[in-house]
Amino acid sequence: MRFFEQAQGVYFDDLDPLHILHNARYVLLFERTLGAFWMELGLGPFQASDRPEQFHLVARNEIDYLAPVRGVGRVRVRLWIERIGTSSLTVAFRLLPTDRDVEYARGRRAIVHVDPQTLRPQRWSDDVRALLAPYTEAAG
Amino acid sequence: MRFFEQAQGVYFDDLDPLHILHNARYVLLFERTLGAFWMELGLGPFQASDRPEQFHLVARNEIDYLAPVRGVGRVRVRLWIERIGTSSLTVAFRLLPTDRDVEYARGRRAIVHVDPQTLRPQRWSDDVRALLAPYTEAAG
Amino acid sequence: MRFFEQAQGVYFDDLDPLHILHNARYVLLFERTLGAFWMELGLGPFQASDRPEQFHLVARNEIDYLAPVRGVGRVRVRLWIERIGTSSLTVAFRLLPTDRDVEYARGRRAIVHVDPQTLRPQRWSDDVRALLAPYTEAAG
Amino acid sequence: MRFFEQAQGVYFDDLDPLHILHNARYVLLFERTLGAFWMELGLGPFQASDRPEQFHLVARNEIDYLAPVRGVGRVRVRLWIERIGTSSLTVAFRLLPTDRDVEYARGRRAIVHVDPQTLRPQRWSDDVRALLAPYTEAAG
Repeated sequence: MRFFEQAQGVYFDDLDPLHILHNARYVLLFERTLGAFWMELGLGPFQASDRPEQFHLVARNEIDYLAPVRGVGRVRVRLWIERIGTSSLTVAFRLLPTDRDVEYARGRRAIVHVDPQTLRPQRWSDDVRALLAPYTEAAG
Repeated sequence: MRFFEQAQGVYFDDLDPLHILHNARYVLLFERTLGAFWMELGLGPFQASDRPEQFHLVARNEIDYLAPVRGVGRVRVRLWIERIGTSSLTVAFRLLPTDRDVEYARGRRAIVHVDPQTLRPQRWSDDVRALLAPYTEAAG
Repeated sequence: MRFFEQAQGVYFDDLDPLHILHNARYVLLFERTLGAFWMELGLGPFQASDRPEQFHLVARNEIDYLAPVRGVGRVRVRLWIERIGTSSLTVAFRLLPTDRDVEYARGRRAIVHVDPQTLRPQRWSDDVRALLAPYTEAAG
Repeated sequence: MRFFEQAQGVYFDDLDPLHILHNARYVLLFERTLGAFWMELGLGPFQASDRPEQFHLVARNEIDYLAPVRGVGRVRVRLWIERIGTSSLTVAFRLLPTDRDVEYARGRRAIVHVDPQTLRPQRWSDDVRALLAPYTEAAG
């Protein structure tokens, strides 16, 4: 199984008064990396109302904070597909330093593919499934 | 068991291109309400390095998105203490409309009380425990 | 001439590592207060693509930072219309403490009323002009 | 005179309901590029309380929005020093597409070098002046 990894910047405005990356910013770092992954697969921007084949809603976010990210700099975000269902998907995330093999945080996001008009769950297309397969732990 | 509830604004800059509250903003709405709760208890600001008795790190966030929050306006955030341990604490959150009894989202945050210098877990003081008791589901 | 004033919260996540309100957040505090003003006038949300009579683009922002806002708490934002032109508008802002007559910051925002489809400048309607008149320094 | 230029990402969460880059985010794109410039000069992070030789406060921001930035993607931020005074500095910014010679926005930030303890204006050191000289339009 493959993973997708991208470096992301941590900026002054991302830090909180404790001089560490604010806990809400992790959601953005994960989402931005997922957007880049989506683009790399040729699926267009992460979330666009004119791409019905990949339109989805966020169903769940979870993050475990293992060690604070201190000061500005760069981090790596790694992701893969933990599980793909009929119309849902769970993405696993890791937040890592650029130069060591420890973990700052682990996350998970569940999304549901829906029809842009009715917002009712839709089956992922075979094309999307095929694109995601190499990055997927389990299908069911 | 009591809960704490506060209205929070949803602003233009909180909305995403789908015209709904961006999923990362829920973390901020929850955190801000927790800050107000902390203040109401007389514990000072939610997180201040000069208040060693309440200094803590975020250990985990989780959010289930049940129904999108559409457009600008006001929402209610309700919280209570789900469980207080020796040096940890889990807060439960609900995001609610101001005028109906449905749920936009459910969340949970785990924090760990640490020593501001060493960052090692610290026992919550009896004072903090006593203040939180009326809002607490379970202690253990 | 009247002004419009509203209290706004300053939250933990608004603070930067210097423990002061981050300079970019002033733009949001001003915009949110402008949104509330717009609502109070009955003009609907500050910016909504389905309200063609008030649809506009931001042409300019400027802010002078006079004294840092330290820590979490509440501030007042005061605004009035500095000048209304045929299709443009300049709003003046002041950021103030809740309990003293000093100024944290002065700002100004210029907006241009445009057609939502063509994005070409549109004349403000007489209705909008009449609503804004009591808050306006100069028209021309 | 030289300029410094860096590509910056525009992400889903940077877009507003009009599907354009939110006006407040320009301040962050400019600040982040200034931070990278500071690092490239060897001045350390843009703003760090333990680097007294570069410690400063933001005195003024201004931005003219010339054309909306639509959708996610990448932009270029260009900056140079417009003027350096005894203890102040004005940075000029341009926001540009990655592939055309038009301007999305022009900005300017004035900062004042201060003593981290007293917050009173300090003379820029000769070292900082020398580092900035190649990027500076006017000194005085």
